[in-house]
Amino acid sequence: MNVVVRNTPRAPLAIVDGLAACGVATVHEAQGRSGLLAPYMRPIYAGARVAGTAVTVSLAPCDNWMIHVAVEQCAPGDILVVAPTSASDAGYFGDLLACSLMARGVRGLVIDAGVRDVRDLTAMGFPVWSRCVSAQGTVKETLGSVNVPVVCAGAAIAPGDVIIADDDGICVVPRRSAADVLKQSIAREEKEAGVRQRLKAGELGLDIYAMRERLAERGLKYIDSSVKE
Amino acid sequence: MNVVVRNTPRAPLAIVDGLAACGVATVHEAQGRSGLLAPYMRPIYAGARVAGTAVTVSLAPCDNWMIHVAVEQCAPGDILVVAPTSASDAGYFGDLLACSLMARGVRGLVIDAGVRDVRDLTAMGFPVWSRCVSAQGTVKETLGSVNVPVVCAGAAIAPGDVIIADDDGICVVPRRSAADVLKQSIAREEKEAGVRQRLKAGELGLDIYAMRERLAERGLKYIDSSVKE
Amino acid sequence: MNVVVRNTPRAPLAIVDGLAACGVATVHEAQGRSGLLAPYMRPIYAGARVAGTAVTVSLAPCDNWMIHVAVEQCAPGDILVVAPTSASDAGYFGDLLACSLMARGVRGLVIDAGVRDVRDLTAMGFPVWSRCVSAQGTVKETLGSVNVPVVCAGAAIAPGDVIIADDDGICVVPRRSAADVLKQSIAREEKEAGVRQRLKAGELGLDIYAMRERLAERGLKYIDSSVKE
Amino acid sequence: MNVVVRNTPRAPLAIVDGLAACGVATVHEAQGRSGLLAPYMRPIYAGARVAGTAVTVSLAPCDNWMIHVAVEQCAPGDILVVAPTSASDAGYFGDLLACSLMARGVRGLVIDAGVRDVRDLTAMGFPVWSRCVSAQGTVKETLGSVNVPVVCAGAAIAPGDVIIADDDGICVVPRRSAADVLKQSIAREEKEAGVRQRLKAGELGLDIYAMRERLAERGLKYIDSSVKE
Amino acid sequence: MNVVVRNTPRAPLAIVDGLAACGVATVHEAQGRSGLLAPYMRPIYAGARVAGTAVTVSLAPCDNWMIHVAVEQCAPGDILVVAPTSASDAGYFGDLLACSLMARGVRGLVIDAGVRDVRDLTAMGFPVWSRCVSAQGTVKETLGSVNVPVVCAGAAIAPGDVIIADDDGICVVPRRSAADVLKQSIAREEKEAGVRQRLKAGELGLDIYAMRERLAERGLKYIDSSVKE
Amino acid sequence: MNVVVRNTPRAPLAIVDGLAACGVATVHEAQGRSGLLAPYMRPIYAGARVAGTAVTVSLAPCDNWMIHVAVEQCAPGDILVVAPTSASDAGYFGDLLACSLMARGVRGLVIDAGVRDVRDLTAMGFPVWSRCVSAQGTVKETLGSVNVPVVCAGAAIAPGDVIIADDDGICVVPRRSAADVLKQSIAREEKEAGVRQRLKAGELGLDIYAMRERLAERGLKYIDSSVKE
Repeated sequence: MNVVVRNTPRAPLAIVDGLAACGVATVHEAQGRSGLLAPYMRPIYAGARVAGTAVTVSLAPCDNWMIHVAVEQCAPGDILVVAPTSASDAGYFGDLLACSLMARGVRGLVIDAGVRDVRDLTAMGFPVWSRCVSAQGTVKETLGSVNVPVVCAGAAIAPGDVIIADDDGICVVPRRSAADVLKQSIAREEKEAGVRQRLKAGELGLDIYAMRERLAERGLKYIDSSVKE
Repeated sequence: MNVVVRNTPRAPLAIVDGLAACGVATVHEAQGRSGLLAPYMRPIYAGARVAGTAVTVSLAPCDNWMIHVAVEQCAPGDILVVAPTSASDAGYFGDLLACSLMARGVRGLVIDAGVRDVRDLTAMGFPVWSRCVSAQGTVKETLGSVNVPVVCAGAAIAPGDVIIADDDGICVVPRRSAADVLKQSIAREEKEAGVRQRLKAGELGLDIYAMRERLAERGLKYIDSSVKE
Repeated sequence: MNVVVRNTPRAPLAIVDGLAACGVATVHEAQGRSGLLAPYMRPIYAGARVAGTAVTVSLAPCDNWMIHVAVEQCAPGDILVVAPTSASDAGYFGDLLACSLMARGVRGLVIDAGVRDVRDLTAMGFPVWSRCVSAQGTVKETLGSVNVPVVCAGAAIAPGDVIIADDDGICVVPRRSAADVLKQSIAREEKEAGVRQRLKAGELGLDIYAMRERLAERGLKYIDSSVKE
Repeated sequence: MNVVVRNTPRAPLAIVDGLAACGVATVHEAQGRSGLLAPYMRPIYAGARVAGTAVTVSLAPCDNWMIHVAVEQCAPGDILVVAPTSASDAGYFGDLLACSLMARGVRGLVIDAGVRDVRDLTAMGFPVWSRCVSAQGTVKETLGSVNVPVVCAGAAIAPGDVIIADDDGICVVPRRSAADVLKQSIAREEKEAGVRQRLKAGELGLDIYAMRERLAERGLKYIDSSVKE
Repeated sequence: MNVVVRNTPRAPLAIVDGLAACGVATVHEAQGRSGLLAPYMRPIYAGARVAGTAVTVSLAPCDNWMIHVAVEQCAPGDILVVAPTSASDAGYFGDLLACSLMARGVRGLVIDAGVRDVRDLTAMGFPVWSRCVSAQGTVKETLGSVNVPVVCAGAAIAPGDVIIADDDGICVVPRRSAADVLKQSIAREEKEAGVRQRLKAGELGLDIYAMRERLAERGLKYIDSSVKE
Repeated sequence: MNVVVRNTPRAPLAIVDGLAACGVATVHEAQGRSGLLAPYMRPIYAGARVAGTAVTVSLAPCDNWMIHVAVEQCAPGDILVVAPTSASDAGYFGDLLACSLMARGVRGLVIDAGVRDVRDLTAMGFPVWSRCVSAQGTVKETLGSVNVPVVCAGAAIAPGDVIIADDDGICVVPRRSAADVLKQSIAREEKEAGVRQRLKAGELGLDIYAMRERLAERGLKYIDSSVKE
């Protein structure tokens, strides 16, 4: 059965914005190295870092009808997450749909398929993470669903989950654990800030992380080169 | 038999330039969703949008001899289209050949293989769409042909056809249908411009395109979320 | 046995810097079309061109422990070369390790795997060539070796060899032949400079390289188009 | 937190066996074209067709420790489903683990990674669907979880779900809908049996499915070839 | 415009059968190393070698409607050639369509997409060359064309052309040159038969093909190993 | 400089044959998880297991001239190892070259490129591991070298090294360490034989390998399913 689920609860935007500030790599570590989408998902331009609450779209391959349906369900702070039911590199999304989403306050698009009009999308400042860029058009013939759980680029995503995306990729944080993950992300950032200063000053990670003894226990040997200059 | 075909007729440059202004996605739709090259073809730098008339090169894998031969057949407004007879990721083309093509008024290169000197090509403003970037050199041992029909990145291209290329990819328009496709591309652009304004103002595609009834007929159901906040 | 080899001899930095100025495509040709790494290795940002002496790291897949060990072995002018023993697209390297390497004068990273924090690495101006970008974290559990011969992205690399990397890719020059290759690279550059001027002036490669006779011997035919305008 | 969940409910084996008899393509259609794993998953030998109840394993890349843990949770009629948290083509599984699973009545393995000893596995008649074949060994250092929901090759799988696998690929049916899907699969098979007889007798699908009118409405034209013999 | 072209002329079956006997590698060489489809096209089972006349199908991605239309245009000795207008790995074809094609005397299928029911197709002895195997179903919503020129897996194919397919891949021979290519294929086979006997008897290709002088001219040096036993 | 190195020392055939009996996975583990070629290398038919001493060929892409040169350097017990200097999927090798190699007692071919005539090679029982199957012909224009160190499918291979290949892939063992690796491989096999019996009898790896305590230390929790039947 194909459904559009309305009024799905979302993670609070204050938490969402806090996670955006931490970035994908930190959040992924902070929640136990989980939640990453596959690294074939790439931004259409460098430098964007956003977070938002997921409005999910499950649609037929090479058919973008349900994206039009999903727009109406979007609210400010959302990120649209689109997953075809079979792999595809057609171009499901272009500048017209981006205009529509921006008018509703949507912060970006994550799509496990292709997009087009990337020159316009870049000029508009609408960030997109996609499997590829393709001008190939799609049809509007087959129903799908909006705001149901989906698997997108190898990650399970539920409506209202937090999506964080930057140049490193994309991470999903389940709605209910978002506050906890934010707390741990901030803690991780603070700890890293201290280490960063010491590394810049020339200290070695071997010493900061006290690795030397464990390396020796495991049997690492240091020898001098036998190659003559 | 290996041949170089001279004085091939080209689509008129006025039409070619009109198509460039429309861009790949629009032209592809306007000619019935046909003519796209495979999306693995990517520009070496972002932001270029060009159109030109095809001078085609069919050459042996890892052998760029026929590109040197093809230069002489190029005229202002052309785009060089290079297709090896077997897949290859060597670097067939660099800044010297680009100097030679620019001296003849060639507008760009489309090659289903690798290119090199991309830093120089970018600085020169010579746009290239290629399968990959590779420094791997090629030989000059085996003949091929110039200005014969080729298949390049999955699309059939004849000499004199129009090639449109931008950040979305590459589209070929047959020489004889170029005027018609331009007319339809412009019509499509005008129609989209009106829709764009309405979408920016917050209207929904569901209403602009009158999709609601057809969605209901197909059986789409709207339900409220049962997940508790 | 897992070892860290200290005090490996390096190619002299004067030669290294000379090779950087020539660039990857030229150096690769100058040493007989050898030494290129696979073209799937891409820079995380455009425009960097560096050369350095290799400090090599052989490590277990999805385990970056030995990168921490390798930092201590790095000296100014080095490039870190990292090769997992099994293919991987995890993110082994981020901004903290880059801070540590920059503090030691390291010029860049070549890694046949993934990296993360690419926004920070770009801002820091620390150039990286990698198989992919991925936020996926790694562990620190299994020993590897530092400054042993490795195969990285299809090329055999020994400690102290010269690594040249730019937008075209990466090339390795064996330490002992670096001076010779520099000499031949410069000779090639000088020859190309003369050809470049002639091509810009409109001369054809067919004439500059005296190709017409050999093409005719091989049987290339020139014919006029039979297609009517 | 890493957990091993014991005593997970499974779909009844009578239903499981019924689904095996229908095969992957039929079951996938019968449940509304959902549940397929990505087509890069291939059987190590042709001709196997099995179904079983999923015991799921989420494990660290290049680390097969949790497979050893999972064996104890397996019961007759199960299929082991293994999903690394990051893409990998190492060989996590070989003939020793297969001996252990066969001793417990396990019917097969689905693993989004590599396997080895495929000659032995084939001789033993233990069917495996995997991303690749690789002899690369793994470590036993990092915890994962058993019988938690996983995403394997792009499909969400819960413990106790039904896995059907044959030469066409792999399909998952949620535990609770297995009885319904079986009913619809059988209905589909019966309908297809009738059509098959008519097609073998030379009737056309165009007529059996009454497609001619709809094709004409859409505008399909029949013309005679203008090419001369 | 979408059309079905009827009564297309075919290459004579006597010539077709002669080409089948020569096999793909020989025919490809005999017609000047042209006509091969991309090597990602693989047979669903080993050992088949067929040739036939092409009935071509251009269809929308993930939509197999036009295959049903094409069946009616097939005659004994044909091979169905299916090319989606955008890359796809869905399963467009299964055992029902194979029954229908076999009832009409069709010899096989070449499809630049996925197929399913491969266990049944294998048992029926209906040979298929495809991009992949996938159970993913398709829709019947969008028109395409039958018996128009297509590009399939990188090769341009016209209706009535000869398709030769075996374990090495697939080759297309234009209808009008089929007789000539057969003649050259047979000549090549006869020449190879003589060489084969000499090679089996221990003669070297270096001598049979008189390569030694040319190798020496090019500068090949023979040296003795300096590695000590 | 292009050279053919004659009379390279080989590992003794008694040791080679011992390694063949152990198989790729065991040998790879026994020499410390090193020496594997990339898993994209696949056998052209299932079931072969061979070992031999490497005769190496470094050749230009799409040019098989040096294979003809290499035949003369082959002796009984050798395996030919072919590595193009740039990636290629052309078909460098077919049944004629196989006849010639079999006449010299060569045991198989490992080639990081394509092969053809696989139907004949299978019938002849000449085992090949290759990157792909392709009928695409190659030229004989450019020199390469025979019996120099090469990198093949990601592994460094020297002439005379032992190559072991079976359905799991390919492993190289350096000539000088072959005797040691054989000893350790046999030890590993014996140990595994004991474990195999215990596993078949129903004992768990958890107990045989005494893993339970370490798992508990790391924090693995066992819980009962909360899902109701």
